[in-house]
Amino acid sequence: MNKAQWIPILLLRGVALVATIVAVIVMVNSHDSATVLGMTFQAKYNNSPTLKYFLIVSIVTAVYSVVALFVPPKKSWRPVLVFDLIVTSFLISSFSAAVGVGQLGKEGNSHAGWLPICGQVPKFCNHITAALIAGFVSVIVYFVLLLYSLNNVLNLVAIKG
Amino acid sequence: MNKAQWIPILLLRGVALVATIVAVIVMVNSHDSATVLGMTFQAKYNNSPTLKYFLIVSIVTAVYSVVALFVPPKKSWRPVLVFDLIVTSFLISSFSAAVGVGQLGKEGNSHAGWLPICGQVPKFCNHITAALIAGFVSVIVYFVLLLYSLNNVLNLVAIKG
Repeated sequence: MNKAQWIPILLLRGVALVATIVAVIVMVNSHDSATVLGMTFQAKYNNSPTLKYFLIVSIVTAVYSVVALFVPPKKSWRPVLVFDLIVTSFLISSFSAAVGVGQLGKEGNSHAGWLPICGQVPKFCNHITAALIAGFVSVIVYFVLLLYSLNNVLNLVAIKG
Repeated sequence: MNKAQWIPILLLRGVALVATIVAVIVMVNSHDSATVLGMTFQAKYNNSPTLKYFLIVSIVTAVYSVVALFVPPKKSWRPVLVFDLIVTSFLISSFSAAVGVGQLGKEGNSHAGWLPICGQVPKFCNHITAALIAGFVSVIVYFVLLLYSLNNVLNLVAIKG
């Protein structure tokens, strides 16, 4: 992989780093409370295993995005490609799970008797929505990065094969 | 890609095909009803947008797995690799979202006031669990298929580069 191919990858990793850091900060600061029928309840991200999973994957991705910036491109593109695939998979997984649970928070599910909570804790829901948007950006950026790296490798095969 | 490399891919696609068909059949047949406080409620997969998404992705993956069996390996491995990546991404996404919602069905979330439903509709929950296990098998199989295809391509680069 030459220098001209490396610069877009650096830029994409930078964007993914910023997006995951935003997701982490917004998610960690997501709390709100509401009083319903005289009972006060607290909405926090760590009340949901799915949102905790989303947070952990965002943190790991941010750390990985920094580490990967310092890996010499010429030698290590092969393990980096596999790690990119694994990181992208976990990003897709945690984002999708959080959207599934977030949709229930917003809409509820009348069949299961689960009421929407966003009316009671709008500040919490806005934070989760913002974190999910940042999460979506990091998913897209890592997917594009993966396609771009793959394309570079495949071109190498096409030229030399 | 030579014939010896193609046989494991055929086998993996076959396993993924069976797993996704099982997931579809089990999911479509998941219904149960319960009477709570004199009210009868029906649990069906199509009451949840997340479970519907899981079903649609399973159907599309099953169809793709059949179509991909008939694509000539020599000419078309490049688009097939990209399609495999997209299919794997959607499999991970729909499986993760369904697990996130399934976990709520099993455990509920006391902070959100969402009661678990599996005690009331155990037959429904067993079906969803079985569909998720089949879904997990298809995720793993497609991920292995992707790593294997990638490895074949990377070896080509290593030999000829």
